[in-house]
Amino acid sequence: MTVLILTVPEDVTADLVVAALHERAVPVVRLDPAGLPGEVSMSAEYVRGDVHGFLSVQERLVSMSSLRSVWVRRPGAPGAGAAHRSEQSEWLTAEAERALYGALRCVSAPWMNHPAAAEQARYKPWQLYTAHRAGFAVPATLITTFPQTAREFAEQHPELVVKSVSGTHPGKPPMVLPTTVVPPDPDFSSVSAGPTLLQEYVRKSADIRLTCVGARQFAAGKKAGPDQVDGRFGSPEDAQWYPVEPPARITRAVRDYMDRAGLAYGAFDFAEDGDGTWWFLECNQSGQFGFVELATGQPITAAIADWLARDGS
Amino acid sequence: MTVLILTVPEDVTADLVVAALHERAVPVVRLDPAGLPGEVSMSAEYVRGDVHGFLSVQERLVSMSSLRSVWVRRPGAPGAGAAHRSEQSEWLTAEAERALYGALRCVSAPWMNHPAAAEQARYKPWQLYTAHRAGFAVPATLITTFPQTAREFAEQHPELVVKSVSGTHPGKPPMVLPTTVVPPDPDFSSVSAGPTLLQEYVRKSADIRLTCVGARQFAAGKKAGPDQVDGRFGSPEDAQWYPVEPPARITRAVRDYMDRAGLAYGAFDFAEDGDGTWWFLECNQSGQFGFVELATGQPITAAIADWLARDGS
Repeated sequence: MTVLILTVPEDVTADLVVAALHERAVPVVRLDPAGLPGEVSMSAEYVRGDVHGFLSVQERLVSMSSLRSVWVRRPGAPGAGAAHRSEQSEWLTAEAERALYGALRCVSAPWMNHPAAAEQARYKPWQLYTAHRAGFAVPATLITTFPQTAREFAEQHPELVVKSVSGTHPGKPPMVLPTTVVPPDPDFSSVSAGPTLLQEYVRKSADIRLTCVGARQFAAGKKAGPDQVDGRFGSPEDAQWYPVEPPARITRAVRDYMDRAGLAYGAFDFAEDGDGTWWFLECNQSGQFGFVELATGQPITAAIADWLARDGS
Repeated sequence: MTVLILTVPEDVTADLVVAALHERAVPVVRLDPAGLPGEVSMSAEYVRGDVHGFLSVQERLVSMSSLRSVWVRRPGAPGAGAAHRSEQSEWLTAEAERALYGALRCVSAPWMNHPAAAEQARYKPWQLYTAHRAGFAVPATLITTFPQTAREFAEQHPELVVKSVSGTHPGKPPMVLPTTVVPPDPDFSSVSAGPTLLQEYVRKSADIRLTCVGARQFAAGKKAGPDQVDGRFGSPEDAQWYPVEPPARITRAVRDYMDRAGLAYGAFDFAEDGDGTWWFLECNQSGQFGFVELATGQPITAAIADWLARDGS
C-alpha cells in the first residue's frame, strides 16, 4: 500500500515527510499534477462494475486501488506543465483536472485533506460559524456591504480590525494582506464597494498556533509585542515559538471542529489575551508547520508521516 | 420562510418556477450573485455564539435564518457585475464569492444542489464510478493518457466513441463537443497529449432523459436515427420527446445514485439499446428540463416548486 503525495517539485516540507515515510519503509509516490499530461500519466478503466485506475510518474506505476492515503500538500494545477505546448491549454487544464481528480475521488483511501472538505474549510464565514458551534471563543465579527451595519457594529465594538475575507491581497503578484486596526471615527461608506470583514480587536499577550494532525495536537505560543496586531508582522525581534499545553476546552473544541469540517489536518491560529483566553482567529487547512517544528521540536512531520502510513488494510 | 433562487436575470426556466411558487403563496427572493456588491447587499454577524445573516436585493431584505430552501439555478459569479468599476475586480470577485457562499454555507436550509455535492457530481470519472455502484448498466469506458492502453481497449471494444472529460470544448467561445465515433484503425499516439475518454459505442434505439427532483422521477424518450451518435445532434426531424415508464431497476438505481451523490436534482442521460437496456451515459446536476416538460407535459416545474416550497419548520 502506497502513500500518494501531490505537491510541486520544490517543497522542502514534503521532502521531510517523504524521508520520514522512507524511515518507516512505506512506499511513496510523489507527483505534481502540473505534470499531467507529460511527466505524469494516468488511466482509469470502468468495465462491468470494476474500476481500475493507474498513475505513472518517472517510470513508477501505482494502482489507485493500492493507495494507502493521499496527501494534498501543494499541488500544481493539472495541465499547467503543458501550457507552452498548446494553444488549447485552458481546455487541456480542465480536461486534465477533471480526469485526475475525478479518478482520485473514487479511491477509498483517506485524504489529508479531501478536496471537498478543503474547499469548505477555506470559507472564512463558514470557519467562524463552525468555530462558534465547536465551542471556541470567537471575537465578534461582521462581514458586510451595508455601511450603516458597519457603523452600528463599530459603536458596539470600538476597537476593530479589518481583514480580507478571502485571505488574498488585491495586488499582483498576490501578497499577504496584514490585519489592520480600524482608525477612530472611520468612514464606512466604501463598505458598499465590497464585502468587508470587521472583527473585535483582541489585545493579545501571545499568538498561538495549534497544529492538528488526525487526533494529535501540537500547540505553540509566541509572545506578542505591545499593540502588535498581525502575528505575521512586527513581532518583537527576540520572540520565538515555544511549546504550550492547550487548555482542555481548546483540545475538545479542536476535535469537534475537525470532525465538523471533515479535516485530517488543520493549522489553528488563536490570539491569547491577558486573561489567558484563546480567541479563535482562523483554521488554515493547508497551513505551514515547518517553522513551528523547527522552533519547538514538536514532531509534526513524524505525526503526518504516521497518519499517512496508517494501514487500513 | 423564503425560497432563495440564485440565477442570472434572463432565465425563463427560473421565471416559471417563481410563478409556480407564487401560486403556492411561498415567498421568493431571486438574485444574481453577480450583483454583489451593488444591486445585491449582504451582511453576516457573528456575536457570542449567534450568527445573523441578511441578503438584500431591490429593497427586499431576507434573513438567512428564515430561508426555506436554496435553488442554485444558473448564478453569475459574485463580483462580476462590478468588474467595470475597479481594477481590483479579480480580488473583488474572490472577496464577494467567499463572503456570499461562505455565509450561505452556514444556513441549515436544504439546497438544490449544495455546492459541494454539485462540484463532486461534475466529475465524469466519479459519475461513472458511482453509476456502477448504484447498479446502472454503464458502457465500458477508458480515460487515459497511455496510447498502449487505448490500443488494447480498442481491440476489446471495436466500436468506440470519444468524448470530452470535462464536457467542454477547446474553442472560444466554448461550444458543445459532440460525441464522435472513433474511425477504424485509429492512431492513438496523441492520447499522451491529454486525457482521452473512450467509451463502448451503444447502438441505440432511443435517447432517454430522466429528470429526478427529490424523490420524483420523470423519464422521457426520443427515437434515435440509424447510426445517430449524440442525441443533441442529428436526430430524425420528426423525433419528439415522449413520456416513458422507467424500469424498476432504473428507478432504484437513480434513487441510489442521488443518495450517494447528495443531490436533490439530477438530469440523467441514457442510451436505450435494441434489447431495451438503458445504458448510463451521464448525470448532469444542472441539466435543463424545460424542453422535456414542453414536449411531454411532465410537471417538472411543479415538482421543483413543490420541493423548494416544502416547509421543514
